Amino acid sequence: MEHRPINLSQKLALFCDQWSPKVIAEMNEIQFKLAKLEGEFEWHRHAGTDEAFLVLDGELTLEFRDGRVKLAPGELYVVKKGVEHLPRADSLCHVLVIEPRGVINTGEEVTERTAESDVWI
Amino acid sequence: MEHRPINLSQKLALFCDQWSPKVIAEMNEIQFKLAKLEGEFEWHRHAGTDEAFLVLDGELTLEFRDGRVKLAPGELYVVKKGVEHLPRADSLCHVLVIEPRGVINTGEEVTERTAESDVWI
Repeated sequence: MEHRPINLSQKLALFCDQWSPKVIAEMNEIQFKLAKLEGEFEWHRHAGTDEAFLVLDGELTLEFRDGRVKLAPGELYVVKKGVEHLPRADSLCHVLVIEPRGVINTGEEVTERTAESDVWI
Repeated sequence: MEHRPINLSQKLALFCDQWSPKVIAEMNEIQFKLAKLEGEFEWHRHAGTDEAFLVLDGELTLEFRDGRVKLAPGELYVVKKGVEHLPRADSLCHVLVIEPRGVINTGEEVTERTAESDVWI
């Protein structure tokens, strides 16, 4: 049987659209998603789950109502369930997002920035 | 409130022991663990869960009964639930392991290579 590695850089080269996470793997019901982010997203929260961000390239700021965290490549942060956050990247940022299958990027509300979920590359 | 990034390199600098994963974060019941691996581990399987490996430095080979996969830095692989595997690193390898809280490194059996689980750094 063939076992193939999932190469993050190769997967990142397969898409250009921003704020539109692409699934590359699943572990149990958890999905690994790659996303390209630039600019400011919108305030949202995920009432039912934590959400992990691992920055691969560029810098990601997660704004909270009570502060912020800046993530450089090789830095991880877990936004806890229910915590409002606004992701922002002053220049293009590549990030690995880890969260349960079915989570949508805008959280509890569907907005014009809601991306299709469960899109695999 | 202070929000702090979890820097993988800084965390890796905090320990030297091999085959002894250290927890750096949790997302729901899922743990992110750093491990330093060198040499050959032992055959085992996790009957109740998948297990994800993301190589950060060095090269990791996962042997299976029906083949193998070699993972370079920036490469991810998910070992599916119940699949026997043997991790091997010909030279020192740093890896991020993602799996549910409570999983032990030797799988279903406790052996002399069973590491304490849920050790945070």
